[in-house]
Amino acid sequence: MRLRNKPWAKDFMAEHPEMLIMDSEGKKSHWAEEFGNPQPIHIEVGTGKGQFIIGMALANPSINYIGIEHFDNVIVSALEKAIEASKPSNLRLLRANGEDLENIFADAEIDRVYLNFSDPWPKTRHEKRRLTHAKFLQKYEGILKPGGEIHFKTDNRSLFEYSLVSMTDYGMKLLSVSLDLHANMPEDNILTEYEEKFSSKGQPIYRLEAEYPIRKKI
Amino acid sequence: MRLRNKPWAKDFMAEHPEMLIMDSEGKKSHWAEEFGNPQPIHIEVGTGKGQFIIGMALANPSINYIGIEHFDNVIVSALEKAIEASKPSNLRLLRANGEDLENIFADAEIDRVYLNFSDPWPKTRHEKRRLTHAKFLQKYEGILKPGGEIHFKTDNRSLFEYSLVSMTDYGMKLLSVSLDLHANMPEDNILTEYEEKFSSKGQPIYRLEAEYPIRKKI
Repeated sequence: MRLRNKPWAKDFMAEHPEMLIMDSEGKKSHWAEEFGNPQPIHIEVGTGKGQFIIGMALANPSINYIGIEHFDNVIVSALEKAIEASKPSNLRLLRANGEDLENIFADAEIDRVYLNFSDPWPKTRHEKRRLTHAKFLQKYEGILKPGGEIHFKTDNRSLFEYSLVSMTDYGMKLLSVSLDLHANMPEDNILTEYEEKFSSKGQPIYRLEAEYPIRKKI
Repeated sequence: MRLRNKPWAKDFMAEHPEMLIMDSEGKKSHWAEEFGNPQPIHIEVGTGKGQFIIGMALANPSINYIGIEHFDNVIVSALEKAIEASKPSNLRLLRANGEDLENIFADAEIDRVYLNFSDPWPKTRHEKRRLTHAKFLQKYEGILKPGGEIHFKTDNRSLFEYSLVSMTDYGMKLLSVSLDLHANMPEDNILTEYEEKFSSKGQPIYRLEAEYPIRKKI
């Protein structure tokens, strides 16, 4: 998918700055002002077409959500859905690269990170691109409050196995693990588009919540 | 199953002290003497009918193995198998309760703990009986060398989920995790009786290797 397949997207995206932030410049340390309140901020890295983060924003009005997505032709779908959902005031979509998190958020500005059905990057030479690689765990730790959490769902067994090892090697503790989320579906589970598609095929969905250790930042 | 179903068992067990240790009294700190060499010692807690520990002993002659089982009418089957396998000199079976590990082994006398298809004790009020409860993790830590490992296999999803949380909460790190061991069967995997039965039904087998933190013992 390329933007040239959606020639109307660029104008449409530029017309909704109250919902879609195209450039994070100047936002660092000012996200509470952006939302106009001091509620906790939860971000989703790789928000895709937005079903999860929009559902979370609607279900939890006392939390502010930022859905981060790098690709214009994907985030434009999230924007459309957010508009259909009457633009929740506790939601922002942000066009940005997960690599840049430390330029977008100040130390401890964030309360939780969600990762959902992230690209598994199965080849060993692409390991550093996995969003649960130590390189990314360090980025999240930098912007999270001490003891902050990552909540992670995927249908990819290898990525989940990798992530369990990577996170505990980093010093994180697992607060909860489900190896078949839909076998005992939590009432508050908001499905992603991908999750909806795969769970209907009977494929297990893996989920974990992990917590950073409370430690002095280096 | 009760011993009275195997009236011949008691005599048979008493006749093979070179392979089956009925009482661990006096063995603490003297396991190297028992084996007659200073090889690393790996134990299996809940060795059942012994297929795993006997297979490991045959496959790895440079490691000493102790299979611990509480129930006479189960361990007698392990003894029969060990005799059929010509009584490997690097193997002992030990009739004992996992609760008593600290009375059986000295601090740091052991190099690795195996747990295979342990009783899941699904009811919350029985949580403390699970062999991956903090109470047991502390026992294993006491007898393991610093940085010692637990290798754990089960087909029970809930027990595996619980164990991931319990172990990382205890401060352990995961060295490897497989959520479908038989999908990529390691060449050196020795199957337990139970594993053979369940894997043939296509049920996933979960496996982990976890490491204790190197820390000063309290």
